[in-house]
Amino acid sequence: MPVEKGHLLINDIGLLRGYALFDYCRTYGGKPFMRELYLQRFQHSAALMGIPFPFESAVLWQIMDKLHRLTGMQDIAFRLLLTGGYTTDGVTPSNTPNLLIITEDIPDVAPEKFTMGIHVITDEYLRELPEIKSTNYVRLIMLRHRIKAAGAADVLFCKDGWVSELSRSNLFLFHGNTLVTPNANILKGITRYAILQLAKGIFKVEERPVAVEELWQASEVFTTGTTKRVMPITVINGQPIADGKPGHNTLKLLAQFNELTASLSVAI
Amino acid sequence: MPVEKGHLLINDIGLLRGYALFDYCRTYGGKPFMRELYLQRFQHSAALMGIPFPFESAVLWQIMDKLHRLTGMQDIAFRLLLTGGYTTDGVTPSNTPNLLIITEDIPDVAPEKFTMGIHVITDEYLRELPEIKSTNYVRLIMLRHRIKAAGAADVLFCKDGWVSELSRSNLFLFHGNTLVTPNANILKGITRYAILQLAKGIFKVEERPVAVEELWQASEVFTTGTTKRVMPITVINGQPIADGKPGHNTLKLLAQFNELTASLSVAI
Repeated sequence: MPVEKGHLLINDIGLLRGYALFDYCRTYGGKPFMRELYLQRFQHSAALMGIPFPFESAVLWQIMDKLHRLTGMQDIAFRLLLTGGYTTDGVTPSNTPNLLIITEDIPDVAPEKFTMGIHVITDEYLRELPEIKSTNYVRLIMLRHRIKAAGAADVLFCKDGWVSELSRSNLFLFHGNTLVTPNANILKGITRYAILQLAKGIFKVEERPVAVEELWQASEVFTTGTTKRVMPITVINGQPIADGKPGHNTLKLLAQFNELTASLSVAI
Repeated sequence: MPVEKGHLLINDIGLLRGYALFDYCRTYGGKPFMRELYLQRFQHSAALMGIPFPFESAVLWQIMDKLHRLTGMQDIAFRLLLTGGYTTDGVTPSNTPNLLIITEDIPDVAPEKFTMGIHVITDEYLRELPEIKSTNYVRLIMLRHRIKAAGAADVLFCKDGWVSELSRSNLFLFHGNTLVTPNANILKGITRYAILQLAKGIFKVEERPVAVEELWQASEVFTTGTTKRVMPITVINGQPIADGKPGHNTLKLLAQFNELTASLSVAI
């Protein structure tokens, strides 16, 4: 049905109590990109949050393929939303979760962002359930005016001197030819995974805790996500990273990722 | 309309991103109890979270009174839910919030709970936005099996050695005739406020940080809330508080609170 007609009853526990999670994937060249991994993550979030997942993958693919055809568009994004269902007492989840599969336009990312890089600001925060793609984005929404006022595109969460992730994407940095990314207190992105696989043949790779000070010592910083792909971060809190331009190694990974999505035939 | 017919569209940002808050008040003897204070708190939550509140109190009272009449019941509870409205891009709130006013049955609290007291367990946790009555109850919902397995009725949140609050109610303790309650990192309850006002004429009252160790030194512990009123806590993590029975001072405050709600004429 049209999104404008889709509704949930007001006793949905995702609405009343925030007991809900989601995932978000997309197509490239009309083909789903790594959707098995996105669905695995969605199921993993559900298991961690304790929401039943009585849906077969094959059935979900069929629904998504049908919705894709109905849009008439080559490339679309899918938002999969799972809630704890309709509650009868206002606080106890149902045994029957509610699943929504919503198609969305893929957000435009201006091409110059990839060549100029984006600015971000830091925020002293750690997501409550970082391994779960829960629907709790209140912190980001409350920060939106501060982000805009700073001329930034996003926020980088740091807590007690450690970097975790951006609001909706993962963080990477280069020290020379060594690629570093946080390994804990993060949502493990599918693009993050793809980049790590691509990078392992080219760079030394370290998945480990990343201290905030390392940001200022890095030769390159970038973020990965389903929408942002491989996006150079050139300024943090108004301070340029290295020479303030997208780095050579970052652009190499972006090019490789673009090749991967253009072909969708490379097995990784 | 009947609750079963009430719905929100699926692009409500309360559902998609948890950007929503609520309040919950009730009637006694057919009359609203301190609803001005509940509404003030609701508006304060909205201001802190940055959700516009373009509703006049008098109009809200009218709607609530009308709903109350339609239920045909003497006493009911009201759930007021405010979300950031329908989002067009999946993450930016609307300028037009969504407000739901829902009537609910007042949950039964077995009378013996007041005479026997309840058991609770502690959890190492602090709510993200403790001064806001946000819809984020994921922690409680994820803990529900552990609470039940422990024979407990609720969870008491503690963090880094400090006590804050229960999942949906405030904490008090007595050291002899001195009443103590946390003053920060909590949702300031309306029942908490009423009890503080009642207690000030009888006991020494301290609003200050409360260390976890104090729980085990207390002569009485209790919790206050719109549903629980003044509820003795007799066991925490399986360990009895003092002699494991509701305390004399707690029962005195419960009696005074019951008098207050029975009359609804005492100005406090």
